[in-house]
Amino acid sequence: MTEVNKSLKLYAGRSNPELAQKIADIAEVELGKIRLTTFKNGEIYARYLESVRGSDVFIVQSVASYEEGDVNDALMELLIMTDAAKRASARTVTAVITHYGYSRQDKKSASREPLSAKLVANLLTVAGVDRTIAIDLHQGQIQGFFDTPVNHLTALPIFADYFLKKGLKNICVVSPDVGRAKASKKLADMLDADLAIMHKSRPLHNVAEVSSVIGDVAGKVCIINDDMIDTAGTMKASAETLKREGATAVYICATHGLFSGPAYERLMEAELEEVVVCDTVPVPASRQNDKIKVLTVAPLLANAIMNVYQEASVSELFDPDFQL
Amino acid sequence: MTEVNKSLKLYAGRSNPELAQKIADIAEVELGKIRLTTFKNGEIYARYLESVRGSDVFIVQSVASYEEGDVNDALMELLIMTDAAKRASARTVTAVITHYGYSRQDKKSASREPLSAKLVANLLTVAGVDRTIAIDLHQGQIQGFFDTPVNHLTALPIFADYFLKKGLKNICVVSPDVGRAKASKKLADMLDADLAIMHKSRPLHNVAEVSSVIGDVAGKVCIINDDMIDTAGTMKASAETLKREGATAVYICATHGLFSGPAYERLMEAELEEVVVCDTVPVPASRQNDKIKVLTVAPLLANAIMNVYQEASVSELFDPDFQL
Amino acid sequence: MTEVNKSLKLYAGRSNPELAQKIADIAEVELGKIRLTTFKNGEIYARYLESVRGSDVFIVQSVASYEEGDVNDALMELLIMTDAAKRASARTVTAVITHYGYSRQDKKSASREPLSAKLVANLLTVAGVDRTIAIDLHQGQIQGFFDTPVNHLTALPIFADYFLKKGLKNICVVSPDVGRAKASKKLADMLDADLAIMHKSRPLHNVAEVSSVIGDVAGKVCIINDDMIDTAGTMKASAETLKREGATAVYICATHGLFSGPAYERLMEAELEEVVVCDTVPVPASRQNDKIKVLTVAPLLANAIMNVYQEASVSELFDPDFQL
Amino acid sequence: MTEVNKSLKLYAGRSNPELAQKIADIAEVELGKIRLTTFKNGEIYARYLESVRGSDVFIVQSVASYEEGDVNDALMELLIMTDAAKRASARTVTAVITHYGYSRQDKKSASREPLSAKLVANLLTVAGVDRTIAIDLHQGQIQGFFDTPVNHLTALPIFADYFLKKGLKNICVVSPDVGRAKASKKLADMLDADLAIMHKSRPLHNVAEVSSVIGDVAGKVCIINDDMIDTAGTMKASAETLKREGATAVYICATHGLFSGPAYERLMEAELEEVVVCDTVPVPASRQNDKIKVLTVAPLLANAIMNVYQEASVSELFDPDFQL
Amino acid sequence: MTEVNKSLKLYAGRSNPELAQKIADIAEVELGKIRLTTFKNGEIYARYLESVRGSDVFIVQSVASYEEGDVNDALMELLIMTDAAKRASARTVTAVITHYGYSRQDKKSASREPLSAKLVANLLTVAGVDRTIAIDLHQGQIQGFFDTPVNHLTALPIFADYFLKKGLKNICVVSPDVGRAKASKKLADMLDADLAIMHKSRPLHNVAEVSSVIGDVAGKVCIINDDMIDTAGTMKASAETLKREGATAVYICATHGLFSGPAYERLMEAELEEVVVCDTVPVPASRQNDKIKVLTVAPLLANAIMNVYQEASVSELFDPDFQL
Amino acid sequence: MTEVNKSLKLYAGRSNPELAQKIADIAEVELGKIRLTTFKNGEIYARYLESVRGSDVFIVQSVASYEEGDVNDALMELLIMTDAAKRASARTVTAVITHYGYSRQDKKSASREPLSAKLVANLLTVAGVDRTIAIDLHQGQIQGFFDTPVNHLTALPIFADYFLKKGLKNICVVSPDVGRAKASKKLADMLDADLAIMHKSRPLHNVAEVSSVIGDVAGKVCIINDDMIDTAGTMKASAETLKREGATAVYICATHGLFSGPAYERLMEAELEEVVVCDTVPVPASRQNDKIKVLTVAPLLANAIMNVYQEASVSELFDPDFQL
Repeated sequence: MTEVNKSLKLYAGRSNPELAQKIADIAEVELGKIRLTTFKNGEIYARYLESVRGSDVFIVQSVASYEEGDVNDALMELLIMTDAAKRASARTVTAVITHYGYSRQDKKSASREPLSAKLVANLLTVAGVDRTIAIDLHQGQIQGFFDTPVNHLTALPIFADYFLKKGLKNICVVSPDVGRAKASKKLADMLDADLAIMHKSRPLHNVAEVSSVIGDVAGKVCIINDDMIDTAGTMKASAETLKREGATAVYICATHGLFSGPAYERLMEAELEEVVVCDTVPVPASRQNDKIKVLTVAPLLANAIMNVYQEASVSELFDPDFQL
Repeated sequence: MTEVNKSLKLYAGRSNPELAQKIADIAEVELGKIRLTTFKNGEIYARYLESVRGSDVFIVQSVASYEEGDVNDALMELLIMTDAAKRASARTVTAVITHYGYSRQDKKSASREPLSAKLVANLLTVAGVDRTIAIDLHQGQIQGFFDTPVNHLTALPIFADYFLKKGLKNICVVSPDVGRAKASKKLADMLDADLAIMHKSRPLHNVAEVSSVIGDVAGKVCIINDDMIDTAGTMKASAETLKREGATAVYICATHGLFSGPAYERLMEAELEEVVVCDTVPVPASRQNDKIKVLTVAPLLANAIMNVYQEASVSELFDPDFQL
Repeated sequence: MTEVNKSLKLYAGRSNPELAQKIADIAEVELGKIRLTTFKNGEIYARYLESVRGSDVFIVQSVASYEEGDVNDALMELLIMTDAAKRASARTVTAVITHYGYSRQDKKSASREPLSAKLVANLLTVAGVDRTIAIDLHQGQIQGFFDTPVNHLTALPIFADYFLKKGLKNICVVSPDVGRAKASKKLADMLDADLAIMHKSRPLHNVAEVSSVIGDVAGKVCIINDDMIDTAGTMKASAETLKREGATAVYICATHGLFSGPAYERLMEAELEEVVVCDTVPVPASRQNDKIKVLTVAPLLANAIMNVYQEASVSELFDPDFQL
Repeated sequence: MTEVNKSLKLYAGRSNPELAQKIADIAEVELGKIRLTTFKNGEIYARYLESVRGSDVFIVQSVASYEEGDVNDALMELLIMTDAAKRASARTVTAVITHYGYSRQDKKSASREPLSAKLVANLLTVAGVDRTIAIDLHQGQIQGFFDTPVNHLTALPIFADYFLKKGLKNICVVSPDVGRAKASKKLADMLDADLAIMHKSRPLHNVAEVSSVIGDVAGKVCIINDDMIDTAGTMKASAETLKREGATAVYICATHGLFSGPAYERLMEAELEEVVVCDTVPVPASRQNDKIKVLTVAPLLANAIMNVYQEASVSELFDPDFQL
Repeated sequence: MTEVNKSLKLYAGRSNPELAQKIADIAEVELGKIRLTTFKNGEIYARYLESVRGSDVFIVQSVASYEEGDVNDALMELLIMTDAAKRASARTVTAVITHYGYSRQDKKSASREPLSAKLVANLLTVAGVDRTIAIDLHQGQIQGFFDTPVNHLTALPIFADYFLKKGLKNICVVSPDVGRAKASKKLADMLDADLAIMHKSRPLHNVAEVSSVIGDVAGKVCIINDDMIDTAGTMKASAETLKREGATAVYICATHGLFSGPAYERLMEAELEEVVVCDTVPVPASRQNDKIKVLTVAPLLANAIMNVYQEASVSELFDPDFQL
Repeated sequence: MTEVNKSLKLYAGRSNPELAQKIADIAEVELGKIRLTTFKNGEIYARYLESVRGSDVFIVQSVASYEEGDVNDALMELLIMTDAAKRASARTVTAVITHYGYSRQDKKSASREPLSAKLVANLLTVAGVDRTIAIDLHQGQIQGFFDTPVNHLTALPIFADYFLKKGLKNICVVSPDVGRAKASKKLADMLDADLAIMHKSRPLHNVAEVSSVIGDVAGKVCIINDDMIDTAGTMKASAETLKREGATAVYICATHGLFSGPAYERLMEAELEEVVVCDTVPVPASRQNDKIKVLTVAPLLANAIMNVYQEASVSELFDPDFQL
């Protein structure tokens, strides 16, 4: 008889290697060695440069567009890395998905649409993912798209901590639409703040849709909260509406800063104090400045990874699954 | 060579036979013959009293407590009916789930909880359900808990139609909590009404939680909208808050009238004009009166069933999948 | 590298907590902490109050009606407990099913019936059960309804031991019908006793069915053996037939004392010496008396659980899988 | 739009082509053209010599040893034929398994045994079998080893009819062991006959096991009934015991005449009137004689196949699933 | 009872719409209406603009890089289109994969590599593909990566026909490496030509690897045959080697003209007469000229699609599955 | 908490026990105790005679005909042994398939054929095999027929070593057909030898097919290399052709010596120097002589088994997965 030895192996896909490195530093493990290449024809190739036999493999990947590839490349790379790990006899593969692409397509809002968020879950599962760690999914129900365990973390406490340290007073957390009301309410509670909710309506028929605010924002410091900033069109308009309604300052916080298309320019132009996002999707240094701040989720993820890996030896007092 | 013939067979579980009969009448089919028994030891037995070989079987069941059984009995009966149909070579089995029990347990809000709504989806699938027709699921994302097609209908137009015919003026649709804001907004748009959202907050630390309203309800006819009425505790409190905030009238509409425990008494006592629910969960005649109204979803379901059954021959102009 | 640590966690569902406690006492483990609630609408909720990450979870449940719920509630609770454990990253879940409800529906005896015993196996499997420990299944073939390991134990030696200690002489074990002949024969062999088999027949056409006995019971102490006592109608009639055929005494032994409907009254009235059952289904103290005895299977189950848990370190000389 | 056309294609494996031909004749279809070869290295090759695209394919095979191969060859041939049919786009494949090999290994009677009957079910399912038609499985519970429909037929009425036509009087059906009591009882009821059951016991310790009879057989015409005759050792001994106990005549009937090893010689030597089997396993003409009779199940199977194929167009009055 | 109606719906993904249109024209069906969009964040969205309920859906897609996206985008689009079709109740989905990306990663040639060609098969299957039509897969064994039917077509007869019409004499088909020898041999047989095989070797140690030819090419018209042209480096070198070895002319034919990176420039520079590819991957008009010819596979695919769709009504004499 | 202990258990099926014993000797483990029986009716029975609970079970079996059974018996025995191990709670089962029967049927070369090599992979998987170790599969792509890890070893270095030690000069490795060219090229590289490839062609129409050689063999020592020798017809003819073309000596090496039908006689008669095979399929001692040599793969397999078993503790410098 031999004792079973376990080993944790942490690998970075190519869509967010900086965050993976930070996690490795905090967890005091080395990033595993892997060769990742894109062939001229666009196909991705992966090869682990060390044995993963019997290991617990964690793969950090942002399923979002990045400098050298788009969201589909990032997803396919994650699937290929998983396939290679399983065929090389890894004991388990945990996908640490810092941004879950396609998460907004989580239900059909018209006939004959795909459920792409579920499709992504199925693709991960068939490739061999045993467990998923994710942050601020568009809806918590995406957990149920998997039959394997999902650890769903939230960056809300990171934002709360940031704004509390800033010493803002008279805060009103603003949900940019009715669908985000629940999460915004949680942030409001953390900040002991008021809540307002924006929605689109038409004052009269044949008149253009306008954005209106439910709740009182006049004279308040508004913090718009969302899960992601994509093209920032709505964000910019919302900030302007709030200012028009008397807000004294407008901050935006969102976990995933996709900054697609004209987003960066829109945000820089917009009448707002600050945009705060996390590093779940990499934000180029050139786009970080006084107005656009990036907070790191590395400690949160490092902690979750170590808890998952060490299983029963973690203190019971600390609940690692801070759920949205 | 022989031609394939298709046949639709519609069966009623025991939790909502009245609705099944109404659907049958509208669809102009006969309810299929099946023996359903509960043995003295509580086990349920089903036997189809006619061939279902090659048929498209539709089973109408409310997965909710009813007069002779509870939600688990209703679920198990549906599973057993499905198993028997598949083993008797039904071509397909469609579960027409008028109320989807356990739908509120659709994500983990604390560690080490089940995802019972996903579990139910998995149980249905393993029993042999090929397709599901459902109404006003707690969250639309539950569609993604299935890998088989789900037709997700909504009763909101039925409520809109009811209130429009009533000729109410100056309406404000009220979401009873932040999680329901999105659906309530849809009803508001159908009624060309305002929107308000309720939430719980603490004005001061060490003070009891109070319900407050975002949005202006003073002088308005309020319609609280939710997916279900369970014990009605929140509903009653909400109605009172709205009245206190100046609402001139309060109506409640909710698709599924579970009326669990003290619900009926609470609603009868509460200061509100009317409670309107659908017949997705049976409401005993003794509980239907001037204050508690029941609208039927039978035409909606009959239409969906016929569309599913007849496949491509349905007019393209009418979109049967009215999605929440 | 870290060593893998294992931990056994034993949980009780609500249908037979007394037996679970006895098992825990014998195995010298504490019953795990879990919150189990039934909401007013009948839905069951479970939450583990301690980490089960990486543990081998054993859930003791009798899938039978009990004081506060019926067989379907007990089954659904087991499924929900399993789902929650798997999503909380339990290493394995073993269902310790002290009574396997629906076990009699293990084959079709008429067209278009369900195979509910197989359905139950499939439901357990899809919920995440990795292994099953069961006692005196209605047929041993139910093992084959699972593709995961099943440890099938029998209480026959417990009954044999009980009757041997009683010092009965001239025993004839009686199978109450042709389907139970095989198991009754095993008990007969353990007791070095004769065997008789009852069956229903019609002496003449147009005459009511009567129960007759194959084998000689006159002047003998008869022990009727079955897997369960349900409504006890057949049991009572069988005892009477045996007395009429000259039996000097009649005992009944059956592993699972469901005592459904009129069972208790029938047994108390019947002409028989004693009814002996096990505690696989809880028998209220008020129904245990001189005539109705309950033997415990706790040592048998505790032993099986420890063997399963400790894997290869158990002595080879002792075979834990005492098979029916 | 085109109409769907269906077609039934009936193929014979090589283990029982005579029965397949009889079925084809009764069903008035031609046996399909297929090339079946065994290579010199023992591997089996199949190729359909006509399109099966979109067809309902029925494959008749006895999973038992036959002249040119053994039970494993017969099974593998059935699996390969199924694989080829599915990959050639057959709409459905129905395995018409006239004898289900390995059916006796349907539960574990000792630790660390296989459940080969379940394994066979799983192999058939993974190869692509959509439905199974079987006759007199060792236990009806084998139906539950499949999650696809199983039509379980019985030859008991064929035997009953045969013996009734013979005009035998004063019949006692004898089950050769306690496990067969249930089926033998059914035959007894069909023949309006008595029932006796044989079992092995030891009159004294340290004395050889002897076969004894429960029930009275003196002066009676005994018909021993079993599902199969394998090596016929027990059968021969049973016949002798019955004669010794006063039986005036002994007949044996068993659906599957495997006649393994010394079976034929034993039966020819044995003191018994007649052995009646079906053609589910081929019996060479040289082994059919005055003492060994073979009845055909072709009409039973042809009827089942046509019912399955024609689906809803069969009369409801006739129940094709005569269940054991 | 209603008759089942079938309908064929043919849709084009965005990677090769020209080929899809040609197929539609030949098959005399209209291309189905679908909305395909790529969002600013790179996510793909699909919506069928007409009912596909009950239809046999065929999706034509080249899983290769194209003008607006790369191979991963093309694959993800195919998966999303499949998911949407299945959830919209299509009866079947057939993926018509004109080029199967990742096909070269069909076995592990080093440890800890992925098997990406198998991964792609699994992704297609889990998304809901029921059948696959493919052309000149890198290895025919890829068929076995699916458990659903695969129709594997070959363009070799198209090339044979092209060269025969050209009236070339004294032909030698050249396999560019040892792995392609089998397919090149087939083309040689179709052209009644000689065969030569190239491979890399080192005449002496410490000397650079050189390409050498087995077989005699001096004085012959050489046709190099491969499944695809990727970066064309080997192709160019091979052509030069053949000329050096005395070939009088060099043609290249390959089914899939990926023309990645420097391929086009290399081929235009290379000493060779003509490069012939098919339209399985779109070749921009600007790259088609006297030296680079594109032959269409549209008739081949249209024929296969109609055969699959019409099932048994196709003539038996014509074998649609021309296998590589 | 208890420590997990692991144990390796190595079992031999009955088709190649000598090789299993050699592996056990090298790996310094004892062959596990198992009872393997074939009943008179041809059914196989297996029972482990010691606990395998929690163990890593390795089963050595050649899926090929052997003295007492054929390829299907060997396969079924492996499946049954796997089933029994999984149901007895083995932690993992690794099939060490020394010869993979049906490997040549790995793609369809005509319509309506099976893909038997894929079928075998599916049968192994459904029976419970967790990992496969194989040697010189007919095509490396068979790895992709599994979704579980496959360790694909090759005996080519064993052959290379054998011939190098022989001191042969002026070697030409000959592939007996175009499909084997790739593997033969590998052997040629190991031996620093030339390469030639044989194929069948017709010099003129209406003239019999002849075997011809591409590449120059005159005056060379030829080593024909293949994965297996089946009936040896082609091998004999190839040797003769090579001699006719001027080869000075002809050796044959093939991993799997099936020697079916007339193979042995053909090889003994043939004009060739030596036939070298491995012991992956047992070669009776009576067939081993000066002309027919058997090399053992036991060290290769023992090494692979220990690497798999010991997981991460193996040196990284040694790559155990020597891939074909």
